[in-house]
Amino acid sequence: MALLLLLFLANILTISEGTCEPGIVKQIHLLRPRSGAGGNSIPGLSCLSWRLAVETNNMIGWKTVPEECEEYVGHYMLGKQYRKDSRAVAKEAFLYAQSLKLAGDGKDIWIFDIDETTLSNTPYYAQHGFGAQPYNATLFDKWVMEGAAPALPESLWLYKKLLSLGIKVVFLTGRHESQRNTTASNLKNVGYHAWYKLILKRFFLLHFECREPSKYSGKTAVFYKSNEREMLEKKGYRIIGNMGDQWSDLLGTNTGNRTFKLPDPMYYIS
Amino acid sequence: MALLLLLFLANILTISEGTCEPGIVKQIHLLRPRSGAGGNSIPGLSCLSWRLAVETNNMIGWKTVPEECEEYVGHYMLGKQYRKDSRAVAKEAFLYAQSLKLAGDGKDIWIFDIDETTLSNTPYYAQHGFGAQPYNATLFDKWVMEGAAPALPESLWLYKKLLSLGIKVVFLTGRHESQRNTTASNLKNVGYHAWYKLILKRFFLLHFECREPSKYSGKTAVFYKSNEREMLEKKGYRIIGNMGDQWSDLLGTNTGNRTFKLPDPMYYIS
Repeated sequence: MALLLLLFLANILTISEGTCEPGIVKQIHLLRPRSGAGGNSIPGLSCLSWRLAVETNNMIGWKTVPEECEEYVGHYMLGKQYRKDSRAVAKEAFLYAQSLKLAGDGKDIWIFDIDETTLSNTPYYAQHGFGAQPYNATLFDKWVMEGAAPALPESLWLYKKLLSLGIKVVFLTGRHESQRNTTASNLKNVGYHAWYKLILKRFFLLHFECREPSKYSGKTAVFYKSNEREMLEKKGYRIIGNMGDQWSDLLGTNTGNRTFKLPDPMYYIS
Repeated sequence: MALLLLLFLANILTISEGTCEPGIVKQIHLLRPRSGAGGNSIPGLSCLSWRLAVETNNMIGWKTVPEECEEYVGHYMLGKQYRKDSRAVAKEAFLYAQSLKLAGDGKDIWIFDIDETTLSNTPYYAQHGFGAQPYNATLFDKWVMEGAAPALPESLWLYKKLLSLGIKVVFLTGRHESQRNTTASNLKNVGYHAWYKLILKRFFLLHFECREPSKYSGKTAVFYKSNEREMLEKKGYRIIGNMGDQWSDLLGTNTGNRTFKLPDPMYYIS
């Protein structure tokens, strides 16, 4: 009964907020567990524990969601709990930002990651096993280039609040420089109208052809993002907050005065 | 029905493992939610989201568990999920340790925190609101000095596995030097028979009387633990793993080759 209610609410939520294609609504139906117990009764594996281990950076370097947890992750991502969890993070981040005494010199910045932080790729992942299928760069790049990713509503809410506090926003993403225009349009179309900087990876990896190797080729996201944050700080900017769905957004150097980890049980980036 | 089953299993688990006093079994009964929905239906607050925010270091500096979440946290701590979550961390830590090619020179060490990492204070917290009541140093110190804390079974399992791999264990705790004998006895009594070092805070704060100020007086756990880990590394030890229930065990400098965060929704230490 509780499960049916959850599915119903997830459905309502999805439709009412208009963030997903009709295909996803269908996907919710397909995700109904084959037995009554959902993802909790898998012998030897608790998908809840797996997700917590992922969110706390205990489980690292994994390539795909365990096959047994595909339905669990799907339910989580399309259901109420993902939204509630995201809302709790956004609210806490706002309370923190609001409590600060800002210098008002335009040097206070907030760093947002993009994928699964400000934009949601759930419509894509819903059709590709919610992370249980191996990552397909070609298909994912195709999705990105459509520029159709919806906003994470809670992050968009936070973004607007931060701007109203006079904080500058910097987007720092692992997306490639070649995806700048599409990414900028996508951000604007869903409500992120202004930013101080949009930092993308400065090498052109498109369809497996590396056109211009850079200092970030083959480096981790931790290295790339630490480096970019360091450059911002050297220019005199103060990173008062840093928000991402991956620990690689939040670890390393120059991590900012406070970090906020959004949930993401679908993939891992080192 | 699922809830009753959970309570039943929690009860069985608690009794069969002999980690708790009779008072706690009674506490399980008292913890039964007043309505049928448990901790999930609190208006404006999802205790699940609160716990995830705590576990991911989004919620920092908090003094007590939100009153509305006392029953939720109690159920979690006494129920199956806490144990499953701990097991997932211990298993992942073992898989990691097992995968290492150790030098065999006796310089590979694993750092364990003590409270809520190797020893469990759940019997104490079960009688003090599971963290929803303000921290009472006098009462907690009294409990510590009883030396009656049970082992966290999953950490004890990992500890034995690590020793069998030839890894040296270091306990690094915020407990005071004055609690050394009791702590050592407690550890031995519950199965932690050997260690390379037991590091306690080198200042004597007993019953609010500071007898010997040290460089750690008034400093955070992050500072204290980073400093102690640095000294170990300067002596040539390699911290291959570092496990704690607080992010202050795992952040800072010299954090080790890999960190493991055990769950703890009952209190926060900076």
